[in-house]
Amino acid sequence: MFLNNFLNMRISSIFYAILFFLSSISYAQEPVDYVNPFIGTSNYGATFPGPIAPRGMASISPFNVAGPQNLPLEKDSRWLSNPYVHENTFLTGFSQVNLSGVGCPDLGVLLLMPTTGVLETNHLKYGSTYSNEIAKAGYYSTEIDKYNIKAAFTTSKRVGVSKFTFPKGKSNILLNLGLGLTNEQGAMVKIVSSTEIEGMRSVGSFCYNNPEAAYPVYFVAKFSKPAANFGVWKKPATYKGVEAQWMGYNGKTRLMDASTKMVVGDSIGTYFSYNFDKIETVEVKIGVSYVSIENARENLEKETANKTFNDVYKEAYNAWNQLLSKIKVEGGSTNDKTVFYTALYHTLIHPNTLNDFNGEYPEIKTSKIGKTAGTRYTVFSLWDTYRNVHQLMSLVYPQQQFDMVQSMLAMYDENGWLPKWELNSTETFTMVGDPASIVITDTYLKGIKDFDVQKAYKAMLKSADQIADNPVRPGLKDYIEKGYLTTENGGSVSTTQEYNAADYSIALLAKELGKTEDYKRFLNRSISYRKLFDKELKLLRPRLKNGNWYKPFDPLAGANFTENIGFIEGNAWQYAFMVPHDINGLKKLMGGNKSFTNQLQKVFDDNQFDMANEPDIAYPFLFNYVKGEEWRSQKMVAELVKKHFKNTPDGIPGNDDTGTMSAWLVYSMMGIYPISPGEPKYAITKPMFDKITIQLDSKYYKNNELVIEKTVNNNGYISQILINGNKQNSYFINHNDLVNGQILKVILK
Amino acid sequence: MFLNNFLNMRISSIFYAILFFLSSISYAQEPVDYVNPFIGTSNYGATFPGPIAPRGMASISPFNVAGPQNLPLEKDSRWLSNPYVHENTFLTGFSQVNLSGVGCPDLGVLLLMPTTGVLETNHLKYGSTYSNEIAKAGYYSTEIDKYNIKAAFTTSKRVGVSKFTFPKGKSNILLNLGLGLTNEQGAMVKIVSSTEIEGMRSVGSFCYNNPEAAYPVYFVAKFSKPAANFGVWKKPATYKGVEAQWMGYNGKTRLMDASTKMVVGDSIGTYFSYNFDKIETVEVKIGVSYVSIENARENLEKETANKTFNDVYKEAYNAWNQLLSKIKVEGGSTNDKTVFYTALYHTLIHPNTLNDFNGEYPEIKTSKIGKTAGTRYTVFSLWDTYRNVHQLMSLVYPQQQFDMVQSMLAMYDENGWLPKWELNSTETFTMVGDPASIVITDTYLKGIKDFDVQKAYKAMLKSADQIADNPVRPGLKDYIEKGYLTTENGGSVSTTQEYNAADYSIALLAKELGKTEDYKRFLNRSISYRKLFDKELKLLRPRLKNGNWYKPFDPLAGANFTENIGFIEGNAWQYAFMVPHDINGLKKLMGGNKSFTNQLQKVFDDNQFDMANEPDIAYPFLFNYVKGEEWRSQKMVAELVKKHFKNTPDGIPGNDDTGTMSAWLVYSMMGIYPISPGEPKYAITKPMFDKITIQLDSKYYKNNELVIEKTVNNNGYISQILINGNKQNSYFINHNDLVNGQILKVILK
Repeated sequence: MFLNNFLNMRISSIFYAILFFLSSISYAQEPVDYVNPFIGTSNYGATFPGPIAPRGMASISPFNVAGPQNLPLEKDSRWLSNPYVHENTFLTGFSQVNLSGVGCPDLGVLLLMPTTGVLETNHLKYGSTYSNEIAKAGYYSTEIDKYNIKAAFTTSKRVGVSKFTFPKGKSNILLNLGLGLTNEQGAMVKIVSSTEIEGMRSVGSFCYNNPEAAYPVYFVAKFSKPAANFGVWKKPATYKGVEAQWMGYNGKTRLMDASTKMVVGDSIGTYFSYNFDKIETVEVKIGVSYVSIENARENLEKETANKTFNDVYKEAYNAWNQLLSKIKVEGGSTNDKTVFYTALYHTLIHPNTLNDFNGEYPEIKTSKIGKTAGTRYTVFSLWDTYRNVHQLMSLVYPQQQFDMVQSMLAMYDENGWLPKWELNSTETFTMVGDPASIVITDTYLKGIKDFDVQKAYKAMLKSADQIADNPVRPGLKDYIEKGYLTTENGGSVSTTQEYNAADYSIALLAKELGKTEDYKRFLNRSISYRKLFDKELKLLRPRLKNGNWYKPFDPLAGANFTENIGFIEGNAWQYAFMVPHDINGLKKLMGGNKSFTNQLQKVFDDNQFDMANEPDIAYPFLFNYVKGEEWRSQKMVAELVKKHFKNTPDGIPGNDDTGTMSAWLVYSMMGIYPISPGEPKYAITKPMFDKITIQLDSKYYKNNELVIEKTVNNNGYISQILINGNKQNSYFINHNDLVNGQILKVILK
Repeated sequence: MFLNNFLNMRISSIFYAILFFLSSISYAQEPVDYVNPFIGTSNYGATFPGPIAPRGMASISPFNVAGPQNLPLEKDSRWLSNPYVHENTFLTGFSQVNLSGVGCPDLGVLLLMPTTGVLETNHLKYGSTYSNEIAKAGYYSTEIDKYNIKAAFTTSKRVGVSKFTFPKGKSNILLNLGLGLTNEQGAMVKIVSSTEIEGMRSVGSFCYNNPEAAYPVYFVAKFSKPAANFGVWKKPATYKGVEAQWMGYNGKTRLMDASTKMVVGDSIGTYFSYNFDKIETVEVKIGVSYVSIENARENLEKETANKTFNDVYKEAYNAWNQLLSKIKVEGGSTNDKTVFYTALYHTLIHPNTLNDFNGEYPEIKTSKIGKTAGTRYTVFSLWDTYRNVHQLMSLVYPQQQFDMVQSMLAMYDENGWLPKWELNSTETFTMVGDPASIVITDTYLKGIKDFDVQKAYKAMLKSADQIADNPVRPGLKDYIEKGYLTTENGGSVSTTQEYNAADYSIALLAKELGKTEDYKRFLNRSISYRKLFDKELKLLRPRLKNGNWYKPFDPLAGANFTENIGFIEGNAWQYAFMVPHDINGLKKLMGGNKSFTNQLQKVFDDNQFDMANEPDIAYPFLFNYVKGEEWRSQKMVAELVKKHFKNTPDGIPGNDDTGTMSAWLVYSMMGIYPISPGEPKYAITKPMFDKITIQLDSKYYKNNELVIEKTVNNNGYISQILINGNKQNSYFINHNDLVNGQILKVILK
């Protein structure tokens, strides 16, 4: 038996080695081949290494955050927002829907797990260590030590495909609907036949909030081989009354063999068991939907019927390569390319597809099923992504950005408000500010105009002006009357800054649309943060309801996500420069260029700069605002990239924030950065490749491509900037100049 | 406001009074009008007062067994098998599927409850006292004190119809899917629209057993008026981990307003709310199915679409009256007629319909959906009903009995075994013995032969002869080898007696089918109880594995359902005469007629007779076996009827046992009793009406009717028995003689 298994193992190892070799040959050198999905799977990056199609609804992640073996990064012992942590070792399945790079837990459910031998339904007992992980864009595989099972995974947009290679003997494929990333519970399952399961799992309560909005993810699972036997397990709650004396089964797990009836419960699952007389593979396809079981089944059939695992992988591979190839980089090390393309990959996960294959999706708030001809996107972490992700989409993937804006406008139609932090058609209202206005303005001003801008403008004004019952802008009355929120509202300074930024975008759009009065009004509103500038500290500072400064005031308080009056996820230093639309105004407040430069440099010198969170991520580029100091931006950005972004699991500085950190890296390595969200302009720093070619979408841009080049002197600073060979004096470039020029050349010295 | 309500109340009271008066006029004197569904709702009768159509799948019971107000008859504080207890006072809803007269809890779920005012989802808070209960066959109404709501109910076969009359103001109709009679938990619900809900509730674990066989009851609810607003509530389990500190909602009930998504959980429900500016009624129709939601919807539509509450009630009323009119009684008091027709009504509840309108039903064990052209019956409490219920069906409702046998044979096809205690296509294997063989033989020998008797015989032999893996007859090896079960098996004496009775029936059928060898073999097996006869005690007594008597032996032990080695739910006295097929053999063992009579009389004199349980219920008729002592049977039966069966809630001596107690009463009042189950013969005692006319089914019987008459002298004893005017000497009558004669006349003196 041992020999036999050993031989089998050897043969399969050789087989996989050959397969890997072949795939290396055929796929080598393509952008997709540089993607390393392990980047961000440690250091709270919160990405997962398993496969997802671009902006896929389904994704598969190895799930290794349950069980005491995984302490301290164990899901029930702390706030943990990801289904996989690279340094953990105890695997309890493969979740079929997942969020990437978020700071709050949700999804991480529908856990598929192959085992062998006698059926065991307790994940703490059936879990295992694992070895030989391989992760590529659209592909993940590992070997499950305890069972000598090879598990490989790929996905189409709405279907996860798992392929298990079992040794000879009794095997089981468990679908655990109880275990999940969060404390949200409840599932329904019905085995349709020996090759099919349908059901749902309740998810939600993102950020431990808004449990009323918990919602179902529906699924249909199809197995390539009929199970020899199957059933449902259910572990009911333990009954405590006097009748417990007659309930010999009290609290015990029930095995409902051959059950094809609907079963519901908090802790249920299915087992499909096999008796193999040789090594055998079983493929499991799981289609998901947020609308219905029928749609989950249709998604499965339309996307993967008659396709093998390899067919689906090939499609995912090609889809990824096509998107990633929109940016071609030359020069740079393999590691440079790896972190670059992996970052670009991470910006193409969220927002992700919500609609089913047939276009249906659950509307937000209305309880209706909507239908879209395009793509209905979801997972809008806008407080993060308004800063750079959507700017990257507008530049490289404008059709996607158009569909995202369309989705945001549909949310306004359905919910009465533009989204703030939307998740699978629930508005979580996480974080602060009014970021949708910035995203929409930014998109429009970059030339992506084929949406209903009048409706968008109306929606923006509603958020900006409606004082009563405004869930987007709490504290708006104070803001409008005083120019700032007071300490009556948490995060009063940060929120004032966010509203300023949003109002600036509204002003820009008003101007574009010829609404002069609005333009003036919002432009005026956009600089009200100045009332919070403490001249002594040269920092922004909270004010009380009576207008007095909040005191005692510690500008260092609030770092590292500790709660801090006046500031959200940061301290006064991390917010001091977060007025990207009014840096010249801020410079004046601070006493001019020199004082501004000193104060900004101090953030870095005193270790107040936090690369891992959004408020200050544009800081490194702000030296561009001071003539002669631009080299500091170039230096700082290069240092930060080198220090924080690596081809290792801890290669993202913190939560990827649905691609925001990654978008920062992509822009930084290209030597441009959207310095003032809403405003179509970029700061120019030093590109980290010799040549970068961005393929432009002919629907929105007249040129076919944009080239960014540099002279080869990696250690120098920019001495000249040329557009199509014409020297330019500014370290900023407008979007139009960028996309209408063809070559941005940076000469280093 | 108060005046207004008062006026409304007055008007509605008058309205109902008129309605009641009218209905009294039009319906008076019909058999159905004698039914008092309150009989059996106290004293553990376990019947419910709410409406059910004859052999209906759906039924509605007021649910008043939850909450400390109902102690000591509170469902969580004890073994309680019924959703309603007459003396309880605190109502928490109206359950839509219920069992009648059983000793173990199951069903009692889908609790509909109307309330007014601010929404409250905790049944302990929204529950209320109630007044002015009215219960009739197919109808129940009451007034809910706390809310001034009148609630009326009726049913079709698979649909419960509720009609709520609300006062002006805010009203709510709750459908509580958490609360239920048992500890079985789990439900799914989805609000389809402002007038429709669909879902399921998990039920099962009958007798606190076999939880793996828990099964869903599916439902669709339709409301006659669209809700002004609606939603789902869910009370999740309380999370105990460290993350509870972030879960402000931990363990709290969530109100998911306007939710149309699928919600699952142990403690969930829906609320449909209204704002009425005057008194308004809302009708709620709830269709149920054990197959699917689709079938529940079809049941609802096919049975009740476009029908008002009154239409449905009229149909139920007529259906009941048609069946109850099969027996017409003359003479006797109104109370006599009431207890008689109510008993007959109780025999027409179980077995009940399992198949949906389209013929589909869940098969037993196979996990398949079967389809029947006739009726698939369920709830076969055969240990009880083999003694008299099926005999009554064969006589009065032979088509129903035929369908019951067909259902039993279908169960054999599906499950490999004839049923023992079948409940909604789960075999609970409750109680002992092999009663199906007796029922089938009894049916066949009474001339209902249009089923596959060869298959039935084969099935009977399987239960009787297969020693290994025989779930029907545990201990069969001992039984065949030694003639009895030993104390290695619980209830060894009782079970031996049950097997003897079954074997006797098999012998009778073998003889009928010309299988002489089998006839001899089983006839011989049927008297093996004699080996357990202790000549000193003149009682049956357990034997040890080695053949010795079990000692010390207390013949009184085991009364009142206390556990007792050798006997099931009874003591040695209550089982001593339970060999109805071999009373003559028993007489010999006991030392002849006199000794037998003395011993039998002693059971009654020493208060060992238990009217409330099955083993000894034929005892009163056994004096007929001793020439000259028949008067004792007549006396005893009359006394027992008078003592135990009354037109009061406690008017059934104990669990009705799905109509077994009631069938005992029906037969006893008619003056005949099927004395030896399986054998087509009746003992004759004194009819309690002057004239009883049984309408016979022309499909099975050549006469149109059978008349039982007596001379009017209620205090006398039988002096002569005439059939069609011909004097007969025996106090027994064969089934053929009974149904082929036309008049059985009993002359009292």
